[in-house]
Amino acid sequence: MKVGVIGLGSMGMGAALSLLRAGHEVTGCDMREAARAEFAAAGGAVAARADALAEGTEAVVVLVVNAAQTEAALFGEGGAASRLAPGAVIVSSATMAPDAARALAAKARERQLLFLDAPVSGGAAKAREGAMTVMASGSAAAFDKARPVFDAMAAKVWALGEEPGIGATVKVVHQLLAGVHIAVAAEAMALGIRAGADPRQLYDVVTSAAGNSWMFENRMARVLEGDDAPRSAVDIFVKDLGLVTEMARALDFPVPLASQAQQLFTAARAMGQGGKDDGFVIRVWQAMTGIKLPGE
Amino acid sequence: MKVGVIGLGSMGMGAALSLLRAGHEVTGCDMREAARAEFAAAGGAVAARADALAEGTEAVVVLVVNAAQTEAALFGEGGAASRLAPGAVIVSSATMAPDAARALAAKARERQLLFLDAPVSGGAAKAREGAMTVMASGSAAAFDKARPVFDAMAAKVWALGEEPGIGATVKVVHQLLAGVHIAVAAEAMALGIRAGADPRQLYDVVTSAAGNSWMFENRMARVLEGDDAPRSAVDIFVKDLGLVTEMARALDFPVPLASQAQQLFTAARAMGQGGKDDGFVIRVWQAMTGIKLPGE
Repeated sequence: MKVGVIGLGSMGMGAALSLLRAGHEVTGCDMREAARAEFAAAGGAVAARADALAEGTEAVVVLVVNAAQTEAALFGEGGAASRLAPGAVIVSSATMAPDAARALAAKARERQLLFLDAPVSGGAAKAREGAMTVMASGSAAAFDKARPVFDAMAAKVWALGEEPGIGATVKVVHQLLAGVHIAVAAEAMALGIRAGADPRQLYDVVTSAAGNSWMFENRMARVLEGDDAPRSAVDIFVKDLGLVTEMARALDFPVPLASQAQQLFTAARAMGQGGKDDGFVIRVWQAMTGIKLPGE
Repeated sequence: MKVGVIGLGSMGMGAALSLLRAGHEVTGCDMREAARAEFAAAGGAVAARADALAEGTEAVVVLVVNAAQTEAALFGEGGAASRLAPGAVIVSSATMAPDAARALAAKARERQLLFLDAPVSGGAAKAREGAMTVMASGSAAAFDKARPVFDAMAAKVWALGEEPGIGATVKVVHQLLAGVHIAVAAEAMALGIRAGADPRQLYDVVTSAAGNSWMFENRMARVLEGDDAPRSAVDIFVKDLGLVTEMARALDFPVPLASQAQQLFTAARAMGQGGKDDGFVIRVWQAMTGIKLPGE
């Protein structure tokens, strides 16, 4: 199958390599030369612009940062739409507001293109293994057309209904939980340190008990090691909790915990920590209280 | 071993029955006649007042509601201290502030009694199986003396150090996480419902992904079933998040997420939901926004 992948970041590169491994004819598109060089070295075709995808591309996976980039990459000047075969499927996988996903779906429909609102999760490592999780909504025809793509890149595809926007909704709600769980993991670890608990013991107790979360276990392990290299950065949650509060506001819906967590990630960004691993939002408490983090 | 258990609530009854099963000579103490009758029917001795424990009791497990009740049950008028054998061990298991645990330890020391600051977790079912988790700190002598008690009632005993107060600290930090995780589970589920996601699908996606927490998985299952019978009630988290904010204030330490979660449980209590299962803090969002909960 002729497949395009737009955006060769950590998730997009993983998807593109997985598709290539599955035997598809893949063009990877990214403005950054280093990303193109990496994918070319793996045997893929590359393009610097979305309108340089292969003529007659049957499926395009868009893994850019947000809705605006997705819109530009598909339907803007120099967008991919002109290169797509009739009846091709767009797999729109950036995290975005449900309204934005619905607007993109409408534009695809005008052009007789199939569309899946299909955010992903799982992180860079799972993306490389072809084991992402996809939370998708769209027509049965779009799912059918996208099946070979999902077979190559995903371990689990949630089919959440016919209506575009549900995939985005579920992803945004998921990010609400993920973001608050990271921020509260930091709050708890910081308080424990200040109160004189041993951070490692605290981690061991919590991860064996009912106070555990996937994020506490994963991110506080990095805090204990003092490893702030970004697998997922503080800036991602400034953005994603921004989507949460934006979606909630549009629905006249109060999200006090998500709003508070967003402020904490924003504080970390203000401190120059935006590019650090997201669990290092704990440095907000460090700045306020002078606690010593493990390994410092 | 002659053991007393003060407080035959869901956790205390479980501990007392487990101790009885292990062959100890157990007196269960509770003001409530129904609780005493239940324990007597299981073959245990009972007492309505702490100073009616067996003379020469070697270990007393205190599983009342808070520090004030623990203090009264041990050292108040009619307290258990007068019934304890020389060198007996007090296992203080109510959730309380670290300062309160240290004050109790000092009073025990004055009376030449051993003391463990030993909060528990695991819920009523695990308590009945003798499979609680204990987070304890205190002297090696106190741990030695308490070993037969822990063997009978706990699946896991965390030995967190020599100093009373560390057990309480770890438990309070654990409750910070538990409370915020329940409140944010409700916030996320409520937002998803308002945004049109199917609650069951949302639950399935989240519990298979990085946004999961132990509490989301456990408590939102009950919300999906519309089962608000209290296993752990809203009021418990009004109290425990109160301990979190009290401990944090004493340390000049900001806990914005715990404070926000406390306000949400307080709102649920204000609505008359204090006795309902804690995940039904989701009714705060229902009251504000009119969403329909599953099964309603």
